Amino acid sequence: MNLKNLLENVKSGAVSVDCAVERLKTLPYDDLDFAKIDCHRKLRKGCGEVVYGAGKTIPQLEKIIATFVKNNENVLITRAKKEQFDALKTAYPDLTFDETSKIMTLILYETQKTGLIAVCAAGTSDLPVAEEAALTAEFFGANVLRCYDVGVAGIHRLFSKLPDIQKANAVIAVAGMEGALASVITGLVAVPVIGVPTSVGYGASFGGIAALLSMLNACAEGMSVVNIDNGFGAGYAACQINRLAGGKK
Amino acid sequence: MNLKNLLENVKSGAVSVDCAVERLKTLPYDDLDFAKIDCHRKLRKGCGEVVYGAGKTIPQLEKIIATFVKNNENVLITRAKKEQFDALKTAYPDLTFDETSKIMTLILYETQKTGLIAVCAAGTSDLPVAEEAALTAEFFGANVLRCYDVGVAGIHRLFSKLPDIQKANAVIAVAGMEGALASVITGLVAVPVIGVPTSVGYGASFGGIAALLSMLNACAEGMSVVNIDNGFGAGYAACQINRLAGGKK
Amino acid sequence: MNLKNLLENVKSGAVSVDCAVERLKTLPYDDLDFAKIDCHRKLRKGCGEVVYGAGKTIPQLEKIIATFVKNNENVLITRAKKEQFDALKTAYPDLTFDETSKIMTLILYETQKTGLIAVCAAGTSDLPVAEEAALTAEFFGANVLRCYDVGVAGIHRLFSKLPDIQKANAVIAVAGMEGALASVITGLVAVPVIGVPTSVGYGASFGGIAALLSMLNACAEGMSVVNIDNGFGAGYAACQINRLAGGKK
Amino acid sequence: MNLKNLLENVKSGAVSVDCAVERLKTLPYDDLDFAKIDCHRKLRKGCGEVVYGAGKTIPQLEKIIATFVKNNENVLITRAKKEQFDALKTAYPDLTFDETSKIMTLILYETQKTGLIAVCAAGTSDLPVAEEAALTAEFFGANVLRCYDVGVAGIHRLFSKLPDIQKANAVIAVAGMEGALASVITGLVAVPVIGVPTSVGYGASFGGIAALLSMLNACAEGMSVVNIDNGFGAGYAACQINRLAGGKK
Amino acid sequence: MNLKNLLENVKSGAVSVDCAVERLKTLPYDDLDFAKIDCHRKLRKGCGEVVYGAGKTIPQLEKIIATFVKNNENVLITRAKKEQFDALKTAYPDLTFDETSKIMTLILYETQKTGLIAVCAAGTSDLPVAEEAALTAEFFGANVLRCYDVGVAGIHRLFSKLPDIQKANAVIAVAGMEGALASVITGLVAVPVIGVPTSVGYGASFGGIAALLSMLNACAEGMSVVNIDNGFGAGYAACQINRLAGGKK
Amino acid sequence: MNLKNLLENVKSGAVSVDCAVERLKTLPYDDLDFAKIDCHRKLRKGCGEVVYGAGKTIPQLEKIIATFVKNNENVLITRAKKEQFDALKTAYPDLTFDETSKIMTLILYETQKTGLIAVCAAGTSDLPVAEEAALTAEFFGANVLRCYDVGVAGIHRLFSKLPDIQKANAVIAVAGMEGALASVITGLVAVPVIGVPTSVGYGASFGGIAALLSMLNACAEGMSVVNIDNGFGAGYAACQINRLAGGKK
Amino acid sequence: MNLKNLLENVKSGAVSVDCAVERLKTLPYDDLDFAKIDCHRKLRKGCGEVVYGAGKTIPQLEKIIATFVKNNENVLITRAKKEQFDALKTAYPDLTFDETSKIMTLILYETQKTGLIAVCAAGTSDLPVAEEAALTAEFFGANVLRCYDVGVAGIHRLFSKLPDIQKANAVIAVAGMEGALASVITGLVAVPVIGVPTSVGYGASFGGIAALLSMLNACAEGMSVVNIDNGFGAGYAACQINRLAGGKK
Amino acid sequence: MNLKNLLENVKSGAVSVDCAVERLKTLPYDDLDFAKIDCHRKLRKGCGEVVYGAGKTIPQLEKIIATFVKNNENVLITRAKKEQFDALKTAYPDLTFDETSKIMTLILYETQKTGLIAVCAAGTSDLPVAEEAALTAEFFGANVLRCYDVGVAGIHRLFSKLPDIQKANAVIAVAGMEGALASVITGLVAVPVIGVPTSVGYGASFGGIAALLSMLNACAEGMSVVNIDNGFGAGYAACQINRLAGGKK
Repeated sequence: MNLKNLLENVKSGAVSVDCAVERLKTLPYDDLDFAKIDCHRKLRKGCGEVVYGAGKTIPQLEKIIATFVKNNENVLITRAKKEQFDALKTAYPDLTFDETSKIMTLILYETQKTGLIAVCAAGTSDLPVAEEAALTAEFFGANVLRCYDVGVAGIHRLFSKLPDIQKANAVIAVAGMEGALASVITGLVAVPVIGVPTSVGYGASFGGIAALLSMLNACAEGMSVVNIDNGFGAGYAACQINRLAGGKK
Repeated sequence: MNLKNLLENVKSGAVSVDCAVERLKTLPYDDLDFAKIDCHRKLRKGCGEVVYGAGKTIPQLEKIIATFVKNNENVLITRAKKEQFDALKTAYPDLTFDETSKIMTLILYETQKTGLIAVCAAGTSDLPVAEEAALTAEFFGANVLRCYDVGVAGIHRLFSKLPDIQKANAVIAVAGMEGALASVITGLVAVPVIGVPTSVGYGASFGGIAALLSMLNACAEGMSVVNIDNGFGAGYAACQINRLAGGKK
Repeated sequence: MNLKNLLENVKSGAVSVDCAVERLKTLPYDDLDFAKIDCHRKLRKGCGEVVYGAGKTIPQLEKIIATFVKNNENVLITRAKKEQFDALKTAYPDLTFDETSKIMTLILYETQKTGLIAVCAAGTSDLPVAEEAALTAEFFGANVLRCYDVGVAGIHRLFSKLPDIQKANAVIAVAGMEGALASVITGLVAVPVIGVPTSVGYGASFGGIAALLSMLNACAEGMSVVNIDNGFGAGYAACQINRLAGGKK
Repeated sequence: MNLKNLLENVKSGAVSVDCAVERLKTLPYDDLDFAKIDCHRKLRKGCGEVVYGAGKTIPQLEKIIATFVKNNENVLITRAKKEQFDALKTAYPDLTFDETSKIMTLILYETQKTGLIAVCAAGTSDLPVAEEAALTAEFFGANVLRCYDVGVAGIHRLFSKLPDIQKANAVIAVAGMEGALASVITGLVAVPVIGVPTSVGYGASFGGIAALLSMLNACAEGMSVVNIDNGFGAGYAACQINRLAGGKK
Repeated sequence: MNLKNLLENVKSGAVSVDCAVERLKTLPYDDLDFAKIDCHRKLRKGCGEVVYGAGKTIPQLEKIIATFVKNNENVLITRAKKEQFDALKTAYPDLTFDETSKIMTLILYETQKTGLIAVCAAGTSDLPVAEEAALTAEFFGANVLRCYDVGVAGIHRLFSKLPDIQKANAVIAVAGMEGALASVITGLVAVPVIGVPTSVGYGASFGGIAALLSMLNACAEGMSVVNIDNGFGAGYAACQINRLAGGKK
Repeated sequence: MNLKNLLENVKSGAVSVDCAVERLKTLPYDDLDFAKIDCHRKLRKGCGEVVYGAGKTIPQLEKIIATFVKNNENVLITRAKKEQFDALKTAYPDLTFDETSKIMTLILYETQKTGLIAVCAAGTSDLPVAEEAALTAEFFGANVLRCYDVGVAGIHRLFSKLPDIQKANAVIAVAGMEGALASVITGLVAVPVIGVPTSVGYGASFGGIAALLSMLNACAEGMSVVNIDNGFGAGYAACQINRLAGGKK
Repeated sequence: MNLKNLLENVKSGAVSVDCAVERLKTLPYDDLDFAKIDCHRKLRKGCGEVVYGAGKTIPQLEKIIATFVKNNENVLITRAKKEQFDALKTAYPDLTFDETSKIMTLILYETQKTGLIAVCAAGTSDLPVAEEAALTAEFFGANVLRCYDVGVAGIHRLFSKLPDIQKANAVIAVAGMEGALASVITGLVAVPVIGVPTSVGYGASFGGIAALLSMLNACAEGMSVVNIDNGFGAGYAACQINRLAGGKK
Repeated sequence: MNLKNLLENVKSGAVSVDCAVERLKTLPYDDLDFAKIDCHRKLRKGCGEVVYGAGKTIPQLEKIIATFVKNNENVLITRAKKEQFDALKTAYPDLTFDETSKIMTLILYETQKTGLIAVCAAGTSDLPVAEEAALTAEFFGANVLRCYDVGVAGIHRLFSKLPDIQKANAVIAVAGMEGALASVITGLVAVPVIGVPTSVGYGASFGGIAALLSMLNACAEGMSVVNIDNGFGAGYAACQINRLAGGKK
């Protein structure tokens, strides 16, 4: 490792202190090669790297998966395509693909699930985003409670699920159109709520802007928001919260 | 009246039919003078003219009020100012001014109240708009039920009022920030809901746009929306609905 | 039924009052199963559920229609596709599909039409939205007057239809581009007008935003607005008004 | 004059052709001094320079007016302030200031008025912009017909003025809020209409954007649009049209 | 004709004056049938109707063309498609289709060209819009000067054409991207300039908004603007100006 | 309590089960009076109510504070004004007011601080928002580490604080202008980051929109975002996370 | 050459000085034919013309390339398509096409590379834009250092490349999503940084607007920005800077 | 210095290599105290720190200036206020304040001016921004050519200055409204142009957005853009370019 080498050279006198100062000013990480980057992120962020599948070629994905396998890391690929899966499953028979969320995974070792994250979705059109959140949360070790089709047009549907939702360490509220579900849930639970606006809707929904603004302006305390359709980001952040809670509940 | 004169001239032969055809092509109303305009609107729209107070000078308002008084019409002035009221109340001692809604009225004869309109507001900051709606509705002859501070951050407050709200012929839902109140109410009542987004909020509420978009995209059926802060418009439209219901309820 | 069971247990003493209080705080509706939801909505909203066809698979639609048929409910499916219709009409020979509005219906029993709703559209390109409104209104029991191609570029076309329009209990004004039709109509009728901006236009019409803003800012009193292209929402709200009018006119 | 000098030097041989080619590549106008700029604009554009008063200091305005007076040119200052007028009227007793339009003029010689421009305004709040257009048009030599308070909320008011409006060579339609007046007028006249959206309105009028978009999307043929509140620009363009018509009508 | 009938009935006493007054209040035009609408527009607007081809079916277009032919009117169809042309040219062998502008015409009688309109375009990508303007102007009887590819990136190209442009009664400036061409031209000519922003560009051009805003804010006097890509509207308005100029130049 | 009464009546047979079912369908909460609402929120959300000071009158605030005092609850008033504080401190000598964050508090009993929240701010102009977050977090029982003036223009300033920041259970990243600080921090820590865009900036920062969009689109995983300038919301959400972590670290 | 001819005619007396003055007022460049335009631009701008390939037909491109070849100029075609390349490579076997950047070049003579430009890109999805910048810079004679996949989610990757980046005369920072890379780089280098926002991202990235706003609001000094996805523009501007530096470094 | 100490401890064996590796992973800069930050920026960026005056208190400014004076650094304070200057000039008699640009400077030693930067502004209202750019450029050692009031409404004014502008190493183009000046200049010079949109304008200029979009979409090659009204940023970037050019020209 270069950094170690540099310091050992300082120790041995092969490199002067002043020269090392100069070198260290801008290059604290330059001794890490590509494989080490992954390890570093895991230490730094608590989770390994995730692969954004959209636009990647089959050879690129093959190479990436091989690197993970070599390091014995589970693989999570978001926004994958059926064609990518079809091309890769021969080489990796354990690869799975979820049609709804477009998530592709290769599980090399099982992770013990802890805690609980509730994923609530307003309508059936919001399922792809909700499932992206749910599967991400499960991949990183959380138990997940799914409460779908609980939008405010029939608010009793939400109320009937509330006692279960209130057991979670974090709630992910997924909604398009006017996104009111996230506000209503936030007013009813004691844990952090992560709002995920979706691009579901038409006309003045503007591809999710209406729901995004709605969630950002929620008057109930305790909600924060991720990008439109960013189920992955919500699942990731909820896992960080769930992990902090130490598997309680 | 010019139109009548023209037709009588046609009848008498003083004006030829062809000449009258030419004249009538573009000028059906040119025989109405200013005072007659008011009468016409009442026939056409079911309510007399309303005065938008903002930016009008005291002399302009004096002249306008005098015209109404001469025609024995009750006066409704929206977006008025305290200074306008102070300057006018000497001449018109019966003039009233509501500080919250900025509505100024001069009631020459009492109107029988009929039916019921519910005005629901999410927070106390929404009161000016809510009261503009409520007082407009009362001015045009509706009974009004006020349900204020029933925002979704504490949704049980709304539920406790629901049986009374459900008795109304029309519901006006006034809300700023994320405007979720309007969606939730619309999912719970069987009558038309008129959403009024307010400019209450900050940051990404964009002066009411967040609430406006939220209401336009509500997934519950039966809501229509008026302009941001347009309590008057909502009160007016709700009255038209209430009148159609014939004072029932 | 769970709620009934709970209360009977309270009555019998099997469940204590305090325990029931706790349970009822958050779960008032959890004893309703899926089929009962439909009934509840009908009671709550005055109309049964409507199916949003876009994005639903054939099997999903088959299952939904079967549920309606089992409950002897007429079926209204909006934003349907020809392929959906073709796949379903064998099983349901009485299913109809309207190419213009993309509305699919299955009528199990005739509804008595009452009252009158006028649907006015500015241009021929606005017809899909106008027909969605008109067919929705008819489905829910209103007589409908269609006044199409009456945009303000040739305003005499509107004037010639005005006496008929003025007989309606509610007017739906459908317009794209600058949406001025809605303003002009609102200035001429005494009943509520529901404006429906359409995405018809190009350039700075921004997919209907120009028409939407135009309608929201109309200076004539009595108009409220629904989302861009939301003919269904306008038809639904107009029906609620028409029903309140009690079939008059 | 430099250009002439250069060419005479070419003629005399004092400057070589090649050298002159080089010089002329980029400097066609560099021989004109400041005073000539004014003359040039008049020749080029048909009207002399206009002074934008906003933000100019009294000394700056004094100097500018003095230049015009020296050249015996009438002065038109737009967006002026009462304080500017008060400070300048001692030195220039013939200076006039119009409170509504904020236009300040100094007329050194009378201009013969020709043709006709109609300035139509929807509401009384639009008067400042309408008067800026009207006074500009008069300053540059057009007769002006003012038709104010003819908005579409009471469309008969417009119809009664139509025969007079139709006599104009150009129509300026000034409107805020939803700006429908411009569309309706354009559908009714045979001459060019210049739409001027105003910032009058509130909420979703967005400082004139609603009216601007409305006018840009008008389905009637023959309208073009200027910037929000730009009465001056509309008056100027209408004058160019009126002048082309050669004082007819 | 109904109106005439009504008046003759008034004359004969068959209809009372009061009854006729009532009838005329709202129905000045209801006696005109469809064919008469066309004639009316020509009188009212100075040009006959134009057909917007987009989205029209072949049978619809056939019917419309037949109506024009019956009335011996030249036909102008904008935003047409090659397929529409191919289907219609058998029935109407004299039909022509311009691939660039997507304009389809059927000329039954030649129109005498008068005056001059200059159509300037910044780049080759702006040609479809520029040609829509040019062909519209020619259809309605104007001579047209085309100055293409004269954008400000090489401003000398514009200068070389300026003397010819300055001979026109109106200038149409077509530009996408930053739309600076329109500003520069307006500073250089004495006649009205009609700016046409185009949707040419990428990134922050936002489908023509950048060019639209640029033209609306031009500091040079005498420009007015039409909708993005609205070559037809610009051509139409320029023709109205050219006609007022009486064929001069 | 009404709900209890109802159930006891069911138990005693005074109210039938069917009648109670009907009643419970819509009114689960109507037995709670105003004072109970506060208690309910504390149970439901984990924290008591917070007072939004902006726009509240002195008498309103006096009444609200009195209610809290009566219930022995600490008071947190956000967006307060110096004048409000000056008027209230006579009655409540223990009231404190923080000029930077505009937070007013009345502490009746001390709360034990647990865990750690890091509040990082990019520049000194972001301090009001950062302090609103920090004081909110402290009010609700968290230890707070403040890292101010660590914007990315001099990124070494952030790096020097990183080891301390990494000890927190949650990080609040406050930044205006381009908001890059939040992205950089999120890439460097393993706990949830809550981004707070501020309205600091000018020109194309659009009152915080640039920073808001920047944070929503951050490519680093683990950030969620609250409304522009919503330091309170971030502090509240971070406390919920910190509480879940059980005072660890 | 016409200009030269004119001046020689002035010299010879064939054209009078006054007549030449008149002619030169508006037409300084009209003597240049199409081929000469190219030469002029090279003199004026320091680089020859570049061809925007999008939307050009094969014959158009053939003609353009032929003109360049005739003038012995290297050809750079941006936003080209594979099909264009396939059709043209028979006639021009030396033509090259880069799939990533969609740049097509025909190199007739080699250019000596000087100086250094660093092109940094945040993610692999930004490569097409980054390569457009890099190849443009190389085409116009700059050495290019590529630093790809150095986004702030793993900021150590950037730091390891910093010593090399700091050797460049100009840095091009290419980033989509939140665009923070450009801010961070600008804070770390002493030379001009040109930010290129890309349309990479989804949801609230709005096709690159988030990155664009982020870069425009960067608090670090020394960055300027080009249009979204405009790699060519950045490469061109960086070359101008690099050329000024005279090949140093 | 901490870093040096750490390395010396490594050398002496007082700190182990592994321990130092751990420490260096995240803290490369933590050994620098506040005074050293300034020195570091100068080395890193080529210029010392600049003070953003807006919102800073007199004591804050006093302290900052004292720090600069202690380090013998010239002081540049942007967006300062007259009151700040008045309060500070007693303590620092050599302090200067420029009313137009709101720039305050304290020059301790003269800087040799090199090279040339041209600052072009469209109108007199753009002067504050232009002067901010010009004074910044001069402060950092560039000669500046000011070309003001050269907007495209009278484009000959620009052409007459062109030969001088073309001598600069970089051109700053400052313009509000439609911002066309920047496009035109870019088409005419061979050096980098930095466009500065200003918030000058009204209506659809949207506080500078029109000019910003115009500049971002300029079709001429070689322009990059800074934030609206960011004269300082443009001056700074232009200086970096000018410095690279090595004082040539």
